[in-house]
Amino acid sequence: MPKLSKRAQLTPASPIRKFLPLARAAQARGVKVYALSSGDPDYSVPPAFFKAVRNYQPKVLGYAPSSGLFEHVAAWQKYYQSLGVKLQPENIIPTAGCAEAILFALLAAADPGEEVLVFEPVYVSYKSFAAMAGIVLKPIRLKPENGYALPSVGEMEQKLSPKTRAIVVVNPDNPTGKLWEKKELETILAFAAKHDLFVIADETYREIRFQGQPECLLKYEAYRDQIILTDSVSKRFTLPGARIGCLASFNPEIMGAALRFAQARLSVGTLEQVGTVPLLRQAKTLAQKARKEYQARCGLVSRELAKMPGVTFRPTQGAFYIIAQLPVQDAEDFVRFMLEDFAYNNQTVLVAPMQDFYLTPGLGQNEIRIACVLKKPDLKNAMQVLKFGLAEYQKKNPA
Amino acid sequence: MPKLSKRAQLTPASPIRKFLPLARAAQARGVKVYALSSGDPDYSVPPAFFKAVRNYQPKVLGYAPSSGLFEHVAAWQKYYQSLGVKLQPENIIPTAGCAEAILFALLAAADPGEEVLVFEPVYVSYKSFAAMAGIVLKPIRLKPENGYALPSVGEMEQKLSPKTRAIVVVNPDNPTGKLWEKKELETILAFAAKHDLFVIADETYREIRFQGQPECLLKYEAYRDQIILTDSVSKRFTLPGARIGCLASFNPEIMGAALRFAQARLSVGTLEQVGTVPLLRQAKTLAQKARKEYQARCGLVSRELAKMPGVTFRPTQGAFYIIAQLPVQDAEDFVRFMLEDFAYNNQTVLVAPMQDFYLTPGLGQNEIRIACVLKKPDLKNAMQVLKFGLAEYQKKNPA
Repeated sequence: MPKLSKRAQLTPASPIRKFLPLARAAQARGVKVYALSSGDPDYSVPPAFFKAVRNYQPKVLGYAPSSGLFEHVAAWQKYYQSLGVKLQPENIIPTAGCAEAILFALLAAADPGEEVLVFEPVYVSYKSFAAMAGIVLKPIRLKPENGYALPSVGEMEQKLSPKTRAIVVVNPDNPTGKLWEKKELETILAFAAKHDLFVIADETYREIRFQGQPECLLKYEAYRDQIILTDSVSKRFTLPGARIGCLASFNPEIMGAALRFAQARLSVGTLEQVGTVPLLRQAKTLAQKARKEYQARCGLVSRELAKMPGVTFRPTQGAFYIIAQLPVQDAEDFVRFMLEDFAYNNQTVLVAPMQDFYLTPGLGQNEIRIACVLKKPDLKNAMQVLKFGLAEYQKKNPA
Repeated sequence: MPKLSKRAQLTPASPIRKFLPLARAAQARGVKVYALSSGDPDYSVPPAFFKAVRNYQPKVLGYAPSSGLFEHVAAWQKYYQSLGVKLQPENIIPTAGCAEAILFALLAAADPGEEVLVFEPVYVSYKSFAAMAGIVLKPIRLKPENGYALPSVGEMEQKLSPKTRAIVVVNPDNPTGKLWEKKELETILAFAAKHDLFVIADETYREIRFQGQPECLLKYEAYRDQIILTDSVSKRFTLPGARIGCLASFNPEIMGAALRFAQARLSVGTLEQVGTVPLLRQAKTLAQKARKEYQARCGLVSRELAKMPGVTFRPTQGAFYIIAQLPVQDAEDFVRFMLEDFAYNNQTVLVAPMQDFYLTPGLGQNEIRIACVLKKPDLKNAMQVLKFGLAEYQKKNPA
């Protein structure tokens, strides 16, 4: 029998999704599971999306252009213009969510065996896509104790090798909930320029920030040819199931490569390109509403976490994730316990253990990521259940 | 400035799509362009698709499971069962068109620097995905003069190396329009088994065959753990813009890898998964109608091609493509001529030059691929225009 490729063996299972079977088993036992493991909010889809989809009923549903439907790309252009970034249609390619844009960016930047710098903890899809592409990720560690601050340039330079091709910066950051400061971004850009690296800027959560104004890294004109922007409508318009994102760059070589990659997969779903046009046009209003809601949700979770003995965390500045350090030895075991061995009033909670968000073995053992994706009353219940679960787990597993 | 990766440089532009700008320029001059370059039919979408989409308006549009929506996977299962192949849900993963399934199959089968055998001429997306994945394609040549028959096993073995991991078989074949005979398929399967290769079976055009019954390679039980099936709803239901396909295999290692790849990109568009359920349920009726229509279209094009002096071709047995050998030195130049320098009654034709469908340099210089994707009256006009264009081109470029 032929053997699976090494890269397929190296591609990790999603730590967010691997506990879903246990969650389903709990549900089958009649237990209500509050799912706070993935960035999949219960927030309503803006009605304009379904209205636009409903009104679109062509006789023929042919391939959209690989470079995107004209009106869809125009809507992205207008959206970026509202952020002060003037892109031409040839600077934008719609993608199947941010995910495909990340894959394209990695493929354009690095060859098999080459290296890309990421901050750890890192959004897990980067690990998967890097493995699929045969790229080695080199982690630059961010630490909760100093608020996930950018390490010194000296520390970053230690991670460089002759094979380093790019650095990834997610802003606001998933999973840390960190907002990168202007000075930090400038340091990263100058570091990348000095060492001839692409900057893969993932701005999926751009508007979900709890201070300052939404911004786009492409505004740094001096560095703009080095930046590969990846974006998504999933979070700001609550449309993860629509699979619409984009890749944008001022670098014509990058855009040429992205177009050739895009031609290989022909096109992105026409219905969703059509449906998201009105949302991109009213992005400011929609995203502001979403921001407010997530800020309230994250605030509630923070207040509840603060009441739990032995739990530490850094209040999130953006996105809708909170990393918490728990008084446990093995967060995976705790997550499993919550699903298999615990219920409070017939309820339990699914969170994401953080081990797999790190590249360095041994880190994140006592950490979980909480996605503040449920309505406040549900979140409040979930936090209470988490507190009781944690107490019971500690009783059974004294430190 | 950082440099583009080598694989990005090696990823070819689509030969099907690269002439679209010239076609648009011709249209801008007021010339009607019959587009026969891509597999993008003018055939109507089955109304059940839009009906199902219209009726689906959840409050929240969250990620579908990476392994697909339950009812969508069940519809694929039922469809394969009608072909005599009993698949469990864990044997099927919905993908963004056949394109994503091809990428997943290649990534699961081969590591960077390893090799995959393909028959040439080859559907061009294989070239792109292989370049993106760092995989080397080794061509086994099919020749029109013997009806694109399978070469001897000895010839195929000459293409093997210690790095060979898989062989691709597209049935019915794009671009040759060839239907693989039972004996040929058995030879390929035995060859793959002997040399420990995966068989990537691309059956996008399964029902569009002009003799015999639709079939699925997974019916060969003795070989089923080696087979990675890639499929699509795009052609049989005329839904290329929906981006729905699947990867299917009985090999649990392959399905484990495909699921991990699928988790990296989270999910496939929910609307289209929902919309295609009723189509998969009535696949037989819908595909039979489509088959009849394409058979009539291909027949018409064949009859018209037969009247053109100096043109040879092999009547297509399936899919809806016809490769024609023209009395020209350079098909790309001819395609450009048709768009830039020629019009008959203010009409012209866009076809795909075949050079880029080959891996061996120098092949296909005088060949074009005609996609029989327009209604018969349009095809008839297009063939007349092609005939006159060819005559004028020959006058200007005597052999």
